[in-house]
Amino acid sequence: MQKRTLLIAAAMLASVAPATAQTIYPLNRAEILEGSRFDFKVEFPNAPASADVKVTINGKPVNEAFGREAQFVQSEEGQKHSALWLRGAQLPAGQYVIEATQGSERASVNWTVYATPERKAKNVILFVGDGMSVAHRTAARILSKGWEQGLYGGELAIDDMPHMALISTSGTDSIVTDSANSASAYTTGHKSCVNALGIYCAKNALTLDHPKVETISEVIKRKRSGMAIGVVTNAEIEDATPAAMVAHTRRRSDYNDIVKMFFDVQPDVIMGGGSPNFLPKSTPGTKRTDDLDFIAKFKDAGYSLATTKTEMNAAVAGGAKKLLGLYNTSNIDGAFDLRLAKKGSISKFPDQPDVVEQTKAAIEMLKGAEDGFFLMVESARIDKYSHSLDWERAVFDTIMLDNAVKVAKEFAGDRNDTLIIVVPDHAHPISIIGTYDDDRPGQLLRDKLGTYNESLPPNYGPRDADGYPTKVDTSRRLAVAFGSYPDTCDTGRPYLDGERVPAVKGPDGKTNVANEKDCASPLATRKQGNLPFDANSGVHSGDDVLLTAMGPGAERFRGHKPNVFVFRVMAEALALGGK
Amino acid sequence: MQKRTLLIAAAMLASVAPATAQTIYPLNRAEILEGSRFDFKVEFPNAPASADVKVTINGKPVNEAFGREAQFVQSEEGQKHSALWLRGAQLPAGQYVIEATQGSERASVNWTVYATPERKAKNVILFVGDGMSVAHRTAARILSKGWEQGLYGGELAIDDMPHMALISTSGTDSIVTDSANSASAYTTGHKSCVNALGIYCAKNALTLDHPKVETISEVIKRKRSGMAIGVVTNAEIEDATPAAMVAHTRRRSDYNDIVKMFFDVQPDVIMGGGSPNFLPKSTPGTKRTDDLDFIAKFKDAGYSLATTKTEMNAAVAGGAKKLLGLYNTSNIDGAFDLRLAKKGSISKFPDQPDVVEQTKAAIEMLKGAEDGFFLMVESARIDKYSHSLDWERAVFDTIMLDNAVKVAKEFAGDRNDTLIIVVPDHAHPISIIGTYDDDRPGQLLRDKLGTYNESLPPNYGPRDADGYPTKVDTSRRLAVAFGSYPDTCDTGRPYLDGERVPAVKGPDGKTNVANEKDCASPLATRKQGNLPFDANSGVHSGDDVLLTAMGPGAERFRGHKPNVFVFRVMAEALALGGK
Repeated sequence: MQKRTLLIAAAMLASVAPATAQTIYPLNRAEILEGSRFDFKVEFPNAPASADVKVTINGKPVNEAFGREAQFVQSEEGQKHSALWLRGAQLPAGQYVIEATQGSERASVNWTVYATPERKAKNVILFVGDGMSVAHRTAARILSKGWEQGLYGGELAIDDMPHMALISTSGTDSIVTDSANSASAYTTGHKSCVNALGIYCAKNALTLDHPKVETISEVIKRKRSGMAIGVVTNAEIEDATPAAMVAHTRRRSDYNDIVKMFFDVQPDVIMGGGSPNFLPKSTPGTKRTDDLDFIAKFKDAGYSLATTKTEMNAAVAGGAKKLLGLYNTSNIDGAFDLRLAKKGSISKFPDQPDVVEQTKAAIEMLKGAEDGFFLMVESARIDKYSHSLDWERAVFDTIMLDNAVKVAKEFAGDRNDTLIIVVPDHAHPISIIGTYDDDRPGQLLRDKLGTYNESLPPNYGPRDADGYPTKVDTSRRLAVAFGSYPDTCDTGRPYLDGERVPAVKGPDGKTNVANEKDCASPLATRKQGNLPFDANSGVHSGDDVLLTAMGPGAERFRGHKPNVFVFRVMAEALALGGK
Repeated sequence: MQKRTLLIAAAMLASVAPATAQTIYPLNRAEILEGSRFDFKVEFPNAPASADVKVTINGKPVNEAFGREAQFVQSEEGQKHSALWLRGAQLPAGQYVIEATQGSERASVNWTVYATPERKAKNVILFVGDGMSVAHRTAARILSKGWEQGLYGGELAIDDMPHMALISTSGTDSIVTDSANSASAYTTGHKSCVNALGIYCAKNALTLDHPKVETISEVIKRKRSGMAIGVVTNAEIEDATPAAMVAHTRRRSDYNDIVKMFFDVQPDVIMGGGSPNFLPKSTPGTKRTDDLDFIAKFKDAGYSLATTKTEMNAAVAGGAKKLLGLYNTSNIDGAFDLRLAKKGSISKFPDQPDVVEQTKAAIEMLKGAEDGFFLMVESARIDKYSHSLDWERAVFDTIMLDNAVKVAKEFAGDRNDTLIIVVPDHAHPISIIGTYDDDRPGQLLRDKLGTYNESLPPNYGPRDADGYPTKVDTSRRLAVAFGSYPDTCDTGRPYLDGERVPAVKGPDGKTNVANEKDCASPLATRKQGNLPFDANSGVHSGDDVLLTAMGPGAERFRGHKPNVFVFRVMAEALALGGK
């Protein structure tokens, strides 16, 4: 890569019109936390020389505006663009107009850099219900609180909060986000693109080279030595949502890099699945391609290691303040399997904690931090099971999230120093359309569907002490429909033999076809997919999601807000602005 | 019917166990506005004599508790139950336990009768977005405000409000409501059952005989001589939501009775479609079965009549304070047809007002009322078009609702005396799953679907001054999926030739089959329905809906609330409690 100092110049390059306009990162309308770090980049099409471009910030040359020297790279990576870079930029609060001129082409963006008021919260707990849509909540309320004559037997912890907002989730590139993109908006305050974490999606070839933006974990670690950080999930710890707490990559599947990024940031509590990416390539079962042993590294850095619930609880009882908990090689099993079906990887990992137990342990370890803590807890498989069109498992994990939120609310109690936010990262096209009733006449699943006055309440078994039904394969069951699907067979029954597999690879090894195992079920209905043939599961929807919140700072939530606003509220509550 | 005075007796009827338990109306957990009228009824199975039953309210005999004499009807209507009736009951605020004993069987319910605090609002405007789901809002925002790099060009009026709550919508009988049942919850504060308005669904054979509960219009008319009432819809005025303002019937299709009920209550402003039920049976085109001329009756009662937008505006300009506006024999055409497609009944009724124009006119007529006004405005066809799986029309009418709310917000301004509530009555299983892009390779609709990073923003035509796109049949369009459908063909394009007809009667004259007209469209995909064969359109979902509100009293909305809570907030804001 050719790098040289930028020469600010007004020279015109009139003869060659750029193929596309200049692109300035952060993008237009970015709202940036005062003093937070971000990589400033401008890309100029057609690979001009530095003398042929000009960049100003509020009319001032870049170097002066940032107080540092930018770098200019002609034909970056041999590509047909040149790049101006200033990594790790910071700005004081204010309104900014950034202009990039190249020949007669002028591009400009506006940024708002905002200060934060006095600190309102000692602690912030951010719950992410991955993929949690309105229907998940409604179904979780029916299943866990009971329904009679149009009224419920109680309120969900996630509903019973004073503040609420509608959050839009799309990223910079498309209407429908993925979890990387959307989680990154919560943890950095910047919109990104599908599959990306902690970066703006630029033209860089390598996934780790894109312009970075600081995560809330990094800001806290840099500015608040007395604050602790926790990252809890029942997905692999390298998965999009937990990774968004620490990572900067264009490709969410960079798991080995993400483990390194966890180690660089060192959140105090790290818990989830996904152990194989921590072990050197010499270890059987590892997924690393290098010789780094992150288990050893974390231990050397003072972390306790827990690989079971028992070890987790022992570490907590022993007063551990730093814990690496890796309870599964893949995702931790969900509540439906942990409690009812006992499928998934229960036999292989019989002593996994659920999200509620992890939340309890994390709060116990973090609550002693002198300057408070920031904890992110993800109930990840609401999303994963919704992809599998396995709504019962998704709703059990919604109940599990609710129970975890209850733990947090009990901790927050009357302290009035803890902001609790519960928010999905995106929605799924899921809805309750009635109830399936085996007593209805007919041979087809659709014959069994009761709608409107015939949508009689389900007759699930009694609820256990934690609000989960003890039996779901009953004669009358919620009828939950997904709006996107590959070729598949709907059985209208819960999948007691293990998570639903809606589609499998067909004979051509490329396109996906219905899972014939399901098609053999008594009432099964064959559905032609409405998704492209390369999809083997349902997809996210672009519908807004619902945030609820309580505690100091929560009053900022109202109306509709873009997902990046969640970061702003957290940063304001913790007063993270300033150098 | 045999009627006689109730004898309070403790006699036992030990030999015959009741087939079902006694049923007490209002049902368990009813929350009742202090002083509002309701029909108290207890049904006793197996038609016992009055001497064999006992009913108490907080331990007191019924007659004493209500201060009036109840009626006992053995074998009501010749049916196998007896009934205790006290029509038009009223109670002071307090907690009530109602016990009905029959032999050894004891049934009991609890009621809360609530007082209202000091009056907070002079006016209340209740907007009902019939069937409006989260996806309708998101799509309306994309279409009317523009979307770029994950951010919108503005906020919807319905979103930009300080208070929000999640509302559950189901009625007493089933998980999924219809619009009668749910609108009735808003206008009476009592849950009801599918197809019912302003009643509890009891065992009565005749639709008008069920136990009634007072509507907010009736309470206001009874207690507030200086308050005006408006009912505005673009459905037929006899349709469920507007009818819920005045009606008491087990059967929402009792249109002729409902017109009479409108006349009995006499809301000051009544506007919508559905004129044929106002004219005597001698008039060509009428749907009445009697000789009553409600046009004449309303005129005699001081109402101006408007059958066109021009007449409506003339009436307003002329200072009318009472208006009957009937602009279509059926529903008023929606925004998509009024503005873009010009199909529907536009040629027959070329001068119909839309919901925005109606709202403006209604506020203008009502705002002079000395003691304030209550206005209900429904955007009805969000629901109707969603039944037809015609999402573009549904979303245009969501934008229309938003523009009507904008009118109300402009009226409310800084007055701080007007409570504005925007709430759907139920949801539809609708979601945005990506964008259809004609430039994608492949021959099938599913090939054209871009998901995630391929869900590029739609390229609809420029928006007009009111925020409606001027072209929707473009090369890249939102992909909106419905989770319930009869056998149908998806075309993936807007229906410019008139509202979509997803299914038609098949050769057997009973079951519904796909509309072959749509199946002939270039990309059309044939879908096997997931609804029973008697369904020819999509159905409602049981998912919660989202309420937003502003103005005095709106602060009561938070968390999850049952739909009946909306009535309570309105009653509290207007201080409607007390005798």
